[in-house]
Amino acid sequence: MGLIVQKFGGSSVANAERINHVADIIADTYKAGNNVIVVLSAQGDTTDDLIEKANRINPNASRREMDMLLSSGEQISIALCAMALEKRGLPVVSLLAWQIGLQTNNTHMDARIRKIAKERLQTELDKNNIIIVAGFQGVNAFGDVTTLGRGGSDTSAVALAAAFHANLCQIYTDVDGVYTADPRVVPNAKKLSEITYADMLELASQGAQVLHNRSVELAKKYHVNMEVVSSLKPVPGTKVKEVVKVEKTNIGGVAKMDNIVRFSLVGLADRPGVAFKVFSLLSRNNVNVDIILQSVGRDGSKDISFTCTMSGVEKARAVLEENRDAMGYDSIEIDYDVAKISLVGAGMMTHAGVAADMFEALYDGGINIQMIATSEIRISVLVKKDDANRAIKVVHDKFFGAES
Amino acid sequence: MGLIVQKFGGSSVANAERINHVADIIADTYKAGNNVIVVLSAQGDTTDDLIEKANRINPNASRREMDMLLSSGEQISIALCAMALEKRGLPVVSLLAWQIGLQTNNTHMDARIRKIAKERLQTELDKNNIIIVAGFQGVNAFGDVTTLGRGGSDTSAVALAAAFHANLCQIYTDVDGVYTADPRVVPNAKKLSEITYADMLELASQGAQVLHNRSVELAKKYHVNMEVVSSLKPVPGTKVKEVVKVEKTNIGGVAKMDNIVRFSLVGLADRPGVAFKVFSLLSRNNVNVDIILQSVGRDGSKDISFTCTMSGVEKARAVLEENRDAMGYDSIEIDYDVAKISLVGAGMMTHAGVAADMFEALYDGGINIQMIATSEIRISVLVKKDDANRAIKVVHDKFFGAES
Repeated sequence: MGLIVQKFGGSSVANAERINHVADIIADTYKAGNNVIVVLSAQGDTTDDLIEKANRINPNASRREMDMLLSSGEQISIALCAMALEKRGLPVVSLLAWQIGLQTNNTHMDARIRKIAKERLQTELDKNNIIIVAGFQGVNAFGDVTTLGRGGSDTSAVALAAAFHANLCQIYTDVDGVYTADPRVVPNAKKLSEITYADMLELASQGAQVLHNRSVELAKKYHVNMEVVSSLKPVPGTKVKEVVKVEKTNIGGVAKMDNIVRFSLVGLADRPGVAFKVFSLLSRNNVNVDIILQSVGRDGSKDISFTCTMSGVEKARAVLEENRDAMGYDSIEIDYDVAKISLVGAGMMTHAGVAADMFEALYDGGINIQMIATSEIRISVLVKKDDANRAIKVVHDKFFGAES
Repeated sequence: MGLIVQKFGGSSVANAERINHVADIIADTYKAGNNVIVVLSAQGDTTDDLIEKANRINPNASRREMDMLLSSGEQISIALCAMALEKRGLPVVSLLAWQIGLQTNNTHMDARIRKIAKERLQTELDKNNIIIVAGFQGVNAFGDVTTLGRGGSDTSAVALAAAFHANLCQIYTDVDGVYTADPRVVPNAKKLSEITYADMLELASQGAQVLHNRSVELAKKYHVNMEVVSSLKPVPGTKVKEVVKVEKTNIGGVAKMDNIVRFSLVGLADRPGVAFKVFSLLSRNNVNVDIILQSVGRDGSKDISFTCTMSGVEKARAVLEENRDAMGYDSIEIDYDVAKISLVGAGMMTHAGVAADMFEALYDGGINIQMIATSEIRISVLVKKDDANRAIKVVHDKFFGAES
């Protein structure tokens, strides 16, 4: 058989019942003759509860101490899961990041994995122990605890799969795979049996919640066979890999992102370098800008619009206001009533007419497009928030058919 | 000034308000020019909550995984306390057992400290950082997490004070020092300004909750100056040291233990070796026996009574019943309605009449003595549970005066 890495998220280990269910899945995998390394997140709302505790004491706590605090959550879930496997009479050992030598860089709360020491894990694999590893956490070169940021446990799982050349890295979630659109929004969305790393990456970046793009990037880099699979129903999931069998549309899916806002700088002087000034300033202040639109305004001036995530709004506003004189604009407008709809698919742009078909679907649906951005494997449009779910449906129907 | 180790228990860090109060105490100590190492327990009921979580999944979980689970509690309190000190603008770092190299033996859930690596702590002391250490936890030679059992955080604090030759090891508690008796039972109990290690050890062993005897043993061994002090009121506490200025009675205090039971084996054959058989059997089965009484019964047989703690009752009963034939007794009687009152004081036995005075006080109070045990610095009597508090009062009044 081989080595299988299985990752379970916070809701999968939220209480005793869910932990027992997870233990059954792990036990079945082990009894089928596999070595198993399990990666767990903190239980349910643990991380949010800990953040609230910290905020009550010091909302400006250092990132080092936040990491010390937050990494306690996974310790609880791995110990409880190990106990559930002990109850099933199976040999098991739970291990923290420092025990498996999971080394990261020094960026607290958003650390990157540098390497994983093999000794302890290999010793436990050689003993045929099931290994339950705390996800999300690492240790930096100073011997301090770090955490990996959003999607950290997925990343831990893929890194372990890469380090030990696992046959498969299964990411267990509440959904049973990757769909052509969010099934809660588009009831006739289709589950993909396979998707390429590239498409998955683009879908994840464009708002599909099922996998975090860092883990997909890592999987792509080290050729890790990933599978998104349901922790609730025993049905086949979606395999993420380098090459998939080509289907007729070549389109992976439709994704929505609505935690974004649109900034407009109105009445900028129409001279060279103005746009450069705006975006280099934002970039230097770590505001990630997504779609950009520049248009000619009244009186020979011009307007520049761009989108950024909700979390960047205050920073962007402050930076722009501080530098108003240098940039010479009339006013800033901020529009919160926007959502981004993205159509994703590898090689999509080589098929003529995909963009035209998408715009036609939106036009037929009476949905106004505010901004457009394209990449090699993606077309994104900005629409009003209220139109977003309908926009997903009409685009999805156009490319995947209205009947499921 | 010097190096001060301060230990705060679970109720002292139970919520944000208490943590801020603890941070103020630490900040004052640091601003007075001291280096400070702080040792914290888990918040309030955290440990009990974690044990309940474990029991719901596997009541027979391995001690290794219990240690993995339980040691998460201190991680939360040290991070939160460090954040409170950061808010006060002070340089601080929280550290776990593995980070300070606190090595223990391999007895999970009741480990003994072997040594403490000096490097990391010395580095932080050299930087003038306040250091917040997770109490109760250690790491064994396999790199697994261990916990130190009851009183573990006190022991962590004393061990750190010993390793770094601290000037003082302060144990902050809910009470403001060591009293001649429990002030909740004896309102006119007197606070001792000083007590010897030996008396403190005996008081702790005999039921005084204020310090755990393992920490006192360690303090005695390494000549650590301890102080029991209130985390609630800024008043002088009780110093625990080798020699104290002699006071007239030479008596340290009165303690009560009521989580005990009395076993009686009735109708044992009156032949040599019977008592040996009983107690060697109990000892081999890890039942700790305290007071022992042997009396002649009817018909030339004899009765043997002994006390043990509540936690040992089922084991003792099982062992005795299994071996009934070998020991040849008629019946086992178990009396739960008992409490032990102990009068403790170094060199007490060299003062004639102490025992007589104690028995007289109990007689005058109309309290029946069921069993008696003495050591060099202690006299213990067994009384009915209902008589216990009154017994403490009359004995205390006899030796410390009725008026405070």
